[in-house]
Amino acid sequence: MKYLEDFAPGDVFTFQTPGASAEEVIAFGETWDPQRLHTDPEYAKTVHGDLIASGFQTLLYVFRPLMSELMPGVANIGGLGLDNLRWERPWHPDTPLKVTMEVLDVTTSRSKPDRGIMSYRVTGRDHDGHVVLVTDANVMMSRRSGSPSE
Amino acid sequence: MKYLEDFAPGDVFTFQTPGASAEEVIAFGETWDPQRLHTDPEYAKTVHGDLIASGFQTLLYVFRPLMSELMPGVANIGGLGLDNLRWERPWHPDTPLKVTMEVLDVTTSRSKPDRGIMSYRVTGRDHDGHVVLVTDANVMMSRRSGSPSE
Repeated sequence: MKYLEDFAPGDVFTFQTPGASAEEVIAFGETWDPQRLHTDPEYAKTVHGDLIASGFQTLLYVFRPLMSELMPGVANIGGLGLDNLRWERPWHPDTPLKVTMEVLDVTTSRSKPDRGIMSYRVTGRDHDGHVVLVTDANVMMSRRSGSPSE
Repeated sequence: MKYLEDFAPGDVFTFQTPGASAEEVIAFGETWDPQRLHTDPEYAKTVHGDLIASGFQTLLYVFRPLMSELMPGVANIGGLGLDNLRWERPWHPDTPLKVTMEVLDVTTSRSKPDRGIMSYRVTGRDHDGHVVLVTDANVMMSRRSGSPSE
């Protein structure tokens, strides 16, 4: 199990996330975000060249490898929030993304020294290296030791 | 159809979103965010009193009424990003949320006067009025008129 002390600013973890099929983009759009650019292939092709995934679906795909491969082995108390999330480019169907997680900051809580906050930046890039989504995130984590002075 | 000019700072829209069932919380967690507090009812009950929905699922539920009831009637070009998203409280199963959208700012683009950006704050509150999720969001929208001086 990894604890707060096991992360340091500058640490980088890389992941891969698969593309979503056109059918997945449409199904997600119809359920959660029914804009025509997500749900209507003919409209989307005329206006945008192809379907565009809902930004919420892009967010889920970018975070899934972190949440399923890294976080289950981390003493993760819970996510606090996201900052400066930007959908930099449209995410079209069948576009795998390279996902990078970079640790920005690690801070032990003053009031509860058995825990602290890790801030990190998550970036999803297409095969040309173009950023599709970037966001900073904050997570509360346990410390291995309960004492900040250890 | 509503255009950028039809929104002004201070405009407020209210929505309701249903609670997610325990089964939905677990299914979402297993697919997108497999932390034990989302997927393991016994563990979650012992540590947190009850299952806690993934913050990504909370985000989807909070935004769904905006995206399905308001945005299809808006000349929405696309979401740009989210700022200062905070999961203020755990979202437990079967907890409907009152969702408020408040327009913060409306700005016509200088370089492309046929469009502009609306910033708005989205807040999801439980039946006691406690904030569960709050975030600011930015969306690019078309102007009814192409001219900023009209």
